[in-house]
Amino acid sequence: MTPELHTHPNERDKALRRRAERVVPGGMYGHSVQKFLWPGAPQFWDRGLGSHVWDVDGTEYIDLMCSWGPLIHGHRHPIVEDAVSRQMGKLDTGNGPTELFVELGELLVDLVTHAAWTIFAKNGGDVTTLALTVARAATGRSTVLVAEGTYHGSLLWASARDAGIAPGDRAHVDYFRYNDLESLQAVASAHADDIAAVIVTPVRHEAGDDQELALPEFAHGLRSFCDTTGALLILDEVRTGFRLSLDSSWTSFGVLPDLSCWSKAIANGYPLSALLGSEAIRDAARAVFKGGTFWMSAVPMAAALATLALLREERGVEQILDRGQQLMTGIRRQAAAHQIPVRVSGPPSMPYLSFDGDVGWAKAKTWAAGAAARGLYVNPSHNWFISTALTLEDVSRALEATGGAFDDLSAVV
Amino acid sequence: MTPELHTHPNERDKALRRRAERVVPGGMYGHSVQKFLWPGAPQFWDRGLGSHVWDVDGTEYIDLMCSWGPLIHGHRHPIVEDAVSRQMGKLDTGNGPTELFVELGELLVDLVTHAAWTIFAKNGGDVTTLALTVARAATGRSTVLVAEGTYHGSLLWASARDAGIAPGDRAHVDYFRYNDLESLQAVASAHADDIAAVIVTPVRHEAGDDQELALPEFAHGLRSFCDTTGALLILDEVRTGFRLSLDSSWTSFGVLPDLSCWSKAIANGYPLSALLGSEAIRDAARAVFKGGTFWMSAVPMAAALATLALLREERGVEQILDRGQQLMTGIRRQAAAHQIPVRVSGPPSMPYLSFDGDVGWAKAKTWAAGAAARGLYVNPSHNWFISTALTLEDVSRALEATGGAFDDLSAVV
Repeated sequence: MTPELHTHPNERDKALRRRAERVVPGGMYGHSVQKFLWPGAPQFWDRGLGSHVWDVDGTEYIDLMCSWGPLIHGHRHPIVEDAVSRQMGKLDTGNGPTELFVELGELLVDLVTHAAWTIFAKNGGDVTTLALTVARAATGRSTVLVAEGTYHGSLLWASARDAGIAPGDRAHVDYFRYNDLESLQAVASAHADDIAAVIVTPVRHEAGDDQELALPEFAHGLRSFCDTTGALLILDEVRTGFRLSLDSSWTSFGVLPDLSCWSKAIANGYPLSALLGSEAIRDAARAVFKGGTFWMSAVPMAAALATLALLREERGVEQILDRGQQLMTGIRRQAAAHQIPVRVSGPPSMPYLSFDGDVGWAKAKTWAAGAAARGLYVNPSHNWFISTALTLEDVSRALEATGGAFDDLSAVV
Repeated sequence: MTPELHTHPNERDKALRRRAERVVPGGMYGHSVQKFLWPGAPQFWDRGLGSHVWDVDGTEYIDLMCSWGPLIHGHRHPIVEDAVSRQMGKLDTGNGPTELFVELGELLVDLVTHAAWTIFAKNGGDVTTLALTVARAATGRSTVLVAEGTYHGSLLWASARDAGIAPGDRAHVDYFRYNDLESLQAVASAHADDIAAVIVTPVRHEAGDDQELALPEFAHGLRSFCDTTGALLILDEVRTGFRLSLDSSWTSFGVLPDLSCWSKAIANGYPLSALLGSEAIRDAARAVFKGGTFWMSAVPMAAALATLALLREERGVEQILDRGQQLMTGIRRQAAAHQIPVRVSGPPSMPYLSFDGDVGWAKAKTWAAGAAARGLYVNPSHNWFISTALTLEDVSRALEATGGAFDDLSAVV
């Protein structure tokens, strides 16, 4: 099969961008801004089904972004949609929760070893922020230690930019280096007995950068540091959650956090996040102020129950790890055959591809544009996400597209 | 028609509460905690249809809470659900937005006089917080003035409790009294030239308290204060939005804010919020960091387009103001006939009933329990919400229930 290059002019996308420029500052914000993509990349989308997506100009792609993580079973998975549809026939946002609130709480406490309780919210940032307040309430301290450059959401204390951030917003946040216990000790010494928590992602997965797996001694060292100092260990699993394990990601190291933060893949695209915590800090979790208009909505909880049941029944985590491994092994081989030095990093279920000596992601963008022209959608400066909807045939077609993308890149480097 | 008293034992609700106690700190959080209700009040809900809701024990109520505001067209409105269903057949959370993102942005900018642009998010608190950062970025200042006791969401700077809040979180927030320009001047004088914004709700609608309409001279005074000092005026319309007007609520006074915050009723229960802003601060809005996994999801935007179109076509705001007025006029008459002194406050589309000399809302809870026993659900310590689904027959049946509730209260006071 010879892949057909997509050469359409993206007219609908361009027209929507022009309209968006008028009613949205800069025309776009968040993940979708054009500067992260290649010239002519689609910004507006029309539909998705399983492992495939269509942009507003009708071009079809195999989807390796999965809506930035949530679509762990692919778009409109029939079993998830059935559960959603049944709940939509009863109640979504109500005067209070439905019984699904209890069922999902029980399931999460059952799945995640360290967890004794849960609090549901909407954004990942809602629960990373709530984790800080619970840790502060539990310890009576203020300072939170964060790995330099780690994304924990867009709220004030975690903002990746300075615009609009006031000094107080980060007054109690200080920074260490991921996988570097010495840097943790050094920053800790500046805060005496005031460290409420250390918050960290199970894998270092910063946009635009190679991923870095946590060293087991780093995970154990963080746990010991917290046990010694009385600080709480918060694992931000918003991106990794249910992609490495159906448990907290460091349970395999034998390292349990005190608090863990979940969202993205929890409900296959329906908006939900959850803070899970250990028994010892239940009272602190009760004491802090929390709540939101849509936090009790039942439809995302129905989606979460179906999503997690499917992952469990169909061994979904193993499947996405396997499929991702197949794909990245193929990509490494293609790169070697083209004599293009690349790095593949991160867990296979959320891999990242980068190119040696790639200034401003220029090679990655050329490569991603080549893949897109052959019907494969990936982001050149952010890790990808594998879904259980990705078939063996999809992997095979994806590798035809990536092979062509390496051809394109060879022609220009 | 003689209303039948509901005397069932709430067995399913009780069982769910016991299970929730194990997996949720304190068994519940946010709006739904039992202490705000009467003993035996339902906490868990099964379904809703139009203006009616059913608790998990199968008891039916006329719904005057509308899920704390969002259900402005009632539960499962067929036109909203059709729009949702069509969009669910295409894409919800995608790799980027759909064209509905642009259409909804254009509609909001068209409806709301002061607005030149919009940014979508999920929680009301997302956009009140984003409003602060835009104001800070636009002015290069830090301090935000807030009306004492006003709820602007559950995030750190706005938290209604001290547990888990660190000194920096509120370091740049100071407080004035609603409808009191002198108190604003007094607090402003303590902050020299550092006031980035004044944030205020169009109506004072604090839980557990009588509502207070903004005096026109207060609204004009805030606008003058901001024009004089260079601070920005932020209207938090999360609760009032589209319940008083299809425009910003103070446009009728001739007072336009620089930023306005919207959520709740915007999408008839689907999770969405929006920050709207004026042309002069577009660049500041572009500069601040923002984004969230579910902020671009298309289904809530489809719901919002349908919700707002319905409000416009069917003169929904006038209708809920009228229905609320009929209901509260009837309740005032019943109270007078029972010689029970009450106060009815707030806009008729989101009214609040309180009782003279009511310590700890004891009378209000007795009254609300009496209404619930006759098939009417209201909250005794929070304003109610009227939907366009509330029929004249519903109002008539609601007044039978409230009449009975006054009988009950007469028997015990």
